[in-house]
Order: sequence, then C-alpha cells, then structure tokens
Amino acid sequence: MPIKEGDPVVIRIDPKRVYLVKALPQRTLHTDKGFIRLADVIGKEYGSSVQTSKGAKAEILRPTPFDIYFGLNRPSQVLYPKDIAYMIYSSGIRAGSKVLEAGTGSGFLALTLAYFLNNTGKVISYDVRKDMQEAARKNAEMLGFTNIEFRLKDVREGFDEEEADAVFLDMPDPWNALRAAHTALKPSASLVVFVPTVNQVERVALAMQANGFTDVHAEELILREYQVRENAVRPRNVGVVHTGYIVRARKSI
Amino acid sequence: MPIKEGDPVVIRIDPKRVYLVKALPQRTLHTDKGFIRLADVIGKEYGSSVQTSKGAKAEILRPTPFDIYFGLNRPSQVLYPKDIAYMIYSSGIRAGSKVLEAGTGSGFLALTLAYFLNNTGKVISYDVRKDMQEAARKNAEMLGFTNIEFRLKDVREGFDEEEADAVFLDMPDPWNALRAAHTALKPSASLVVFVPTVNQVERVALAMQANGFTDVHAEELILREYQVRENAVRPRNVGVVHTGYIVRARKSI
Amino acid sequence: MPIKEGDPVVIRIDPKRVYLVKALPQRTLHTDKGFIRLADVIGKEYGSSVQTSKGAKAEILRPTPFDIYFGLNRPSQVLYPKDIAYMIYSSGIRAGSKVLEAGTGSGFLALTLAYFLNNTGKVISYDVRKDMQEAARKNAEMLGFTNIEFRLKDVREGFDEEEADAVFLDMPDPWNALRAAHTALKPSASLVVFVPTVNQVERVALAMQANGFTDVHAEELILREYQVRENAVRPRNVGVVHTGYIVRARKSI
Amino acid sequence: MPIKEGDPVVIRIDPKRVYLVKALPQRTLHTDKGFIRLADVIGKEYGSSVQTSKGAKAEILRPTPFDIYFGLNRPSQVLYPKDIAYMIYSSGIRAGSKVLEAGTGSGFLALTLAYFLNNTGKVISYDVRKDMQEAARKNAEMLGFTNIEFRLKDVREGFDEEEADAVFLDMPDPWNALRAAHTALKPSASLVVFVPTVNQVERVALAMQANGFTDVHAEELILREYQVRENAVRPRNVGVVHTGYIVRARKSI
Repeated sequence: MPIKEGDPVVIRIDPKRVYLVKALPQRTLHTDKGFIRLADVIGKEYGSSVQTSKGAKAEILRPTPFDIYFGLNRPSQVLYPKDIAYMIYSSGIRAGSKVLEAGTGSGFLALTLAYFLNNTGKVISYDVRKDMQEAARKNAEMLGFTNIEFRLKDVREGFDEEEADAVFLDMPDPWNALRAAHTALKPSASLVVFVPTVNQVERVALAMQANGFTDVHAEELILREYQVRENAVRPRNVGVVHTGYIVRARKSI
Repeated sequence: MPIKEGDPVVIRIDPKRVYLVKALPQRTLHTDKGFIRLADVIGKEYGSSVQTSKGAKAEILRPTPFDIYFGLNRPSQVLYPKDIAYMIYSSGIRAGSKVLEAGTGSGFLALTLAYFLNNTGKVISYDVRKDMQEAARKNAEMLGFTNIEFRLKDVREGFDEEEADAVFLDMPDPWNALRAAHTALKPSASLVVFVPTVNQVERVALAMQANGFTDVHAEELILREYQVRENAVRPRNVGVVHTGYIVRARKSI
Repeated sequence: MPIKEGDPVVIRIDPKRVYLVKALPQRTLHTDKGFIRLADVIGKEYGSSVQTSKGAKAEILRPTPFDIYFGLNRPSQVLYPKDIAYMIYSSGIRAGSKVLEAGTGSGFLALTLAYFLNNTGKVISYDVRKDMQEAARKNAEMLGFTNIEFRLKDVREGFDEEEADAVFLDMPDPWNALRAAHTALKPSASLVVFVPTVNQVERVALAMQANGFTDVHAEELILREYQVRENAVRPRNVGVVHTGYIVRARKSI
Repeated sequence: MPIKEGDPVVIRIDPKRVYLVKALPQRTLHTDKGFIRLADVIGKEYGSSVQTSKGAKAEILRPTPFDIYFGLNRPSQVLYPKDIAYMIYSSGIRAGSKVLEAGTGSGFLALTLAYFLNNTGKVISYDVRKDMQEAARKNAEMLGFTNIEFRLKDVREGFDEEEADAVFLDMPDPWNALRAAHTALKPSASLVVFVPTVNQVERVALAMQANGFTDVHAEELILREYQVRENAVRPRNVGVVHTGYIVRARKSI
C-alpha cells in the first residue's frame, strides 16, 4: 500500500540520521546529508528508498515504537524502549484494553500504548503540566492515533475512570497515587510503576503490599547492544548503564 | 464479571505455588498446601481469594503472559518474559497484525502473541515436530485463543503466507530461513530472531545485511530481580544470567 | 621444585572436583572418582598429574587465591573472588603493607591478603567469634602463612593498631566502626567496605563523607562466566547474580 | 612521613580534577580552579590539603593504582581497573613474583604490577613499539618503581625469561604467543589474557586447551558505579558498558 499524503513516515539515512515526519507534499526535510522533498515520498512503498539532494540513500520506513522513541523531543526522558517493552508486557494489556497512565511526560509511553492498541481500546494519559500534554497530543495526531486522550489532573486526587485494565505510573511519588490506582483498576488487573532510585523502589513496593496489591515484583533491565562485524563481535563500549526500576503488582480484593 | 465454567484462572498460594487451570466444576487442584475444588472458584471475581482444604489463602487471578509462562510445561525453554517482551515490542506488531513464527517449541511465544492480539489479527506458528504443536494447541484452547494456527512445515522451505506484519524465528539455523522470511514479510516489516550463542548472532546478523534487511540490531537483556524488605533492598543472589540474544531487522525492497 | 611433605597442594580432577590439601604422606584423599595416596604426590612437580585408584587423571597444582576460595568451608560466604580482587586492588595495599580487617568470617579475605603479601607485611584479622577464627587459623597454618594474626575483639571499640596501610570491613554495621578505622589508618590510606544491601551502601557512604573520609565510591561488580565450545560461545545460563557492594574511601586529615 | 622532593603525589580538587605529579619544588600545577606551587606540597602529610590560587581546596594523596590509571596518558586504553584487579588476582602473583607481560601499551598493567610487588620480585614488559615503552618508562621513574624492565621484542618469537610466576598478554593475537608463554612459565603458573571481542575469546580459549594449559576460564566483569545521595541511591546513568574479556589458564606438564 503506497504512502498517502498525511501518513507518518520514517526516513533513515544511517543509524544516527533517523527522522519521523508526516508526509506533507509541501514539506522538505533538511539534513546535513542533503534534503528530501516529501512530495517525492508520497506514492512510494514503505521499505523502499529515495535519494537526498546530495545523493545519499534514504530508506522510507513505516514507524514502529522505536521510531516513535527516536522521533520524540525528549527533554527529561528516562523511559527507554527496554523498559517500556517490559512494562507493557507486565501489565497484561492487550487489544481492546482500557489503560490509564500518569504522568504524560514526553508522551512516549502513552504513544506506545496507543500504537499497540491500534485504535482498539483506549489510553487516557494524565499530567499536571499542560505544555507536556500539548507536545504529546501533536505527536499522537501526526501518528494518526485516535484512541488516546489527555487529561490535565493530579492523579493523587483520583483518576476519573474505573474498571481499567492497567495503570502505569511514572512520577516522583507513586506511593501517593496507589489508592487512586487501586480504585481505578479492575480486580486482578496490574499496576506498573517506573522509578529511578532504589529508595523509591523500597517505598513503593512496601506501600503496594500494604495497600491491597499482591504479586509484587521489583525488577531492573540492563540492555547490551552488540557491534557485529565479521570475526569481531563485542558489546558496544559506552552507553546507558541505568535508567530505572520497574515495580509491578496486581490488585486484590 | 464473575468467573464462568471453562474460564482460565490462575490460582496463586505463594510465589512458588502458582497454577494455571481451566475452571471446570468437576476438577480439583491438589497442592502440598491442600486442595481446592474448582467448583468453588466458579462464580467468584478475579482478584478475590478462596481457602485450600488446609486453610491456606489462595488468590484467584486473571491470566497474564507471566502466568502463561509459569503455567507451561517447558522442557527446553530458553525464551523468557524479558526476551519475549522486547521481541514483541521490537517487532512493531499491534492489534490486528498478522504474525508468523517458527519454531513453535513450547508455544510460549505463539501464545503470548495470541494473548496480545486478543483475537484480532492472526498468529501462525510453524514447527517440524507435531508433538510440540499438540501441547501448544491444548494450551491455546484452554486459554480461549481462537486466532492462533499451527502448521507442520519446515520454514526453511518457505512460509505459506505473504504480507506478514512480523516474522519471529527461534530455531538453530535462522540464517537458512531468511529468504523465506523476506518473501513472507510486508516491505518495512520486522524480522525478530532469538539465538543463544554469540556465533549465531554473528552469522545471522551478517546474513540479514546481505539478504535484503536493513536497520539490523543485536541486543541482549539482563534482568535483575530485587528482594525488597524494609531497610534491606538488594538483587536476588542467584538466578538466570543468560538466556540468549535478540537480533532484529526490517525488510527493505 | 618438587612438592615436599607438608606443602599445600591442589588436586583437580575436573572443574567440580578440586581439593585443597596438605601433602602428608600418611593421608589419603577419597573422591567418587577414586582415591589418591598423598605420599604419591610428594616429590612430583606442581603442574604434573597422578592417577586416582579408578584411573581418573588428577592434576597437581600450586594453590592460588581461587583454590583458597574453593577449598574453604564457607557456611555464610558472601565475598567472592570478583569482589576480593577489586577490594584488594582498591585498597592500594602492596608487598610490605600492614592490613587490618573485620570480621574474620570464613577467613577468605584474610587468607587472600596474606597470600598476596607472601610473608612481607602483616595481616591482622578481628572477629567477635572464636570458632570462626579457629577455622581460619587452621587454614592459614595449612597454607604456610606466618604473617597473619587473629584477634578476638569488637572493632567498633577500636583496633589495637595504628598507621595501617588499609582497613577492610565486612560486617553488618560498618558505620559503627568508621571512627575506629579512621584512627587506625595512615593519612590518605584506604578503607574498603563490603555490604550486601543498598540501604547499607547509602548509610556507610554518607557516614564516610561525614567522618573524615574523602574520595568515596560505591560500586558493584557483575561477573559473567563464558562457556567456550567451538562455534558455540555464550555466557553460562545460571549463576550468582548478586553478592554485594563495595564502598571505598581514603582518610583525610 | 611528610612528602619529600621527588615523591609522587596525587592532587585532587574534585572527582574530575585529579592530577598525578612528582613533587618538584620548581614546578607549578595549573588547573581551571587555580594553580598550586608544588613547593607548597613538599613537607605536607599525605591526606592533608592545600588551597589553589583561586581558593579551592586541593587534597594531597598518596598514589594508589587508581591514581596511576587516571594519571596516565591513555591514547588506546582498553584495560580498566576492574579488569586489572581481576587479572592480577587470577594470576596468583604475590610479593616476590617474577612477572612477564606483553604488550606494554599504555604501561598501566606493568605499572600496577610493579606497584603491588613494591620492589620485591620483577616485572618485565615486552612491546614492539619503542615510543609506548618510553612513556611507560617515564611513568615508572616518576612513581619510583625500580623493579620494572622494558624489553623491545615480539613475544611471539619467545620471551627471554624462564620460570615466570605469571604471564599477561594484552595483544591482538594472543594465540600466537601461547607456546612462548608456556615455555616461559613455571609449571602450574598462570597465563592471563585480555581481549576485546568474543571471537578472540573463542580462539584463545580453544588454543589454550590444545597447547598444554589446564583450568581454562573465560570471564567478563561489568562494573556499576552508584551515585549515593541521601534518599536517592541509583547507578550512574551513562558509562562504560564493555571493555573486554579475561581468559586465564594454568600451565600443565
């Protein structure tokens, strides 16, 4: 199916030059390897390639969650794909689920959830900062996600929804939102929390146990990327060594 | 919504006693902490609890992928939740996707894919061993998954499908199935491979680059589980230190 | 130089059958792969081999710190070679150093320190439990270490020595021994602490900063052992994933 | 014992400003936090402090192996303290040992070995590049090490010594130096090799098994540094994730 006007596309020149854009005929993408008129991309197949004005090959790809991640503006990013992947898996959500999350932050988790649900179910993302939500909303619109809603509210005072299939918390004091999460969740459904320090792990895990949650787990994922050359395979030398911890539990009644 | 006859349920007495069963009124679950008549579970809510014949509390939970994992018979298991989570994320699949995988093995990946798709889209799982597929098929039936199909065929000779949204390979010589995967995939769609040795990483990653795939990555995930007690937080002492490597790429045309 | 009566020897049949013994002519080593009369070992060279009564090859090796580790009785062992190695390196000790440590525990650290110093300098090991020290003393005697002394005393009340080149603490509440360590150390010399939980890391590192220590570091080492077979290299699957944290600092004046 | 003219000293203003210098009365150390006349350092105690011309506190410390590491000019550095620590431990060397190594490289391993031996025993460092050895020789002279010798020779053609207590190899093709190492080592003594890729691990470990070595191990160390603030403990976010692998074995006869 060829790319139509308004479709989101990933333009990849090399591993360091990956761009997530909307295919608008009047727009031009400028890079240090030359420019690309997006009008030339419309009508091509995902998986094919074009040339930049300087003759560099540029692959045209269909956005996946990795591209959403790399395409976002991330001023205060701590959530990484490795964490998001495990958080979504752990949550037990699936096509058709109703999912709540706070805070919106860069929007990366909300957008990834919306991607997986693919306009089945619903994602409702809470934050107290309007500016963050505006940026996330624009990204949702560009990506064509219609099943995501942003709400400006402090979840420590409660979610507006009930019978949620999962709640995600990425905020400094998640222990203050546990009662709200418990009320909002379906019985047996999962709460998944992300925190950067061990002290927060201790506090939130113990609070879960004391506040109606069962099957509590605290985990950390370390990702190692490998450089593969013929007869010379080894992990990359330098990289991210820590993002945060994932603490998860299920609501008991 | 109360549990009905035939629903899959997780019965959890403690972290080491977790059982995935079908709620059949005539069945009794026997454990060293006492037995539970499943007739007593029917009509209860997920998230509630019953008592075993010896008075132990047993929580009744709705199955998530973790429970599918723990409930499976895994004679030759190498895929773990941490790997499955990242493989599914990496693949870019979403509600409604058509997904191919080989080999079926324990069925864990196929069942997890079917779980997430939740009877949208389709999972087709290939293997050359009929006995493995039979076990996986029974688990799919117990879990109520109708969007999963098992096919007895060597994928090195080709998949029967085209326009797949993702292909997963967990087999000893994935490089021999790359052409088949390339043919079966939509342009730009992802191939995700799991292998246990570094030698396989080198061979499959280089073969991907030489056979029409782009955006090739080789990665490994290390999971650390934490023991959280008040004022005594530390990683678990002993555990799994290696499962395998994930090599992923996208089809270019 | 051939092995003499009374020399310590390592007898290695395979990776799981490694024995650290004293070469006494009247002694026989019994294993499930057959027995070895130590009289037959005396006069052989380190690096050569003998046969067990059942015909298995048994290598005769000169003890290294690894063998001390594997040869010890370790009821409550938490210190591992990877930790000991980094602790000794970090401490800045060298031939001729005077080194203090508490508690003796299994004696592994004290014996390793005595091994490296090789009867130059001095190791003084403190503990409040006499039984632990007795076991360590016997091992020191077997290994021929004469520069190690055991003292039955609670170091929280002070060490008997001054001008130490390094102090090592492996005890539940090292923060209660910081003033004693500061008094005992030479200016600029190192204090190296081993603790199993993150809470202890926080407490001891902050206490060091507040009690006359500088250049404070908290670190953890993860060791991965590889299984190397031709064309099949990968980390071992299961193993120790956590031992503890190393916190180190230098005395300022 | 106060610092004398010519003594090596570490001047530490903060974790990023650590300088290893020789206390020469005519020399001035210039930093962006002000300068320090080394004449003012002579006569002070290690562990005390001075002020820079801009009023910053500068601690005066006695060099340890960490300072040797940070004080070196390291154009092509791959060996890190975590690796050096485990390599020295694994080698079984001790006060009085005779140790061989190739290549000299930055000199970090040779200097650290000389530090531990503290003018007992002997370190002989081989390389084919004279310029590298000159830099290492100057550092040895500054640090006052007299038990270290540099030799300009390709060790693949043999070491000049016999009866060595340990041999260390940090070179691209260590398998080509195994026979030379075997000849140079005492029976039962250790060979310790450092290599950056998994392919080299495979090749050298298999070659050791085939060339008269026993007790072969291939290992990797991952170091995590923690940031300790009150109520906010977590690993550092970004850092070195891979340096290389350590392969070790003992000579059998």
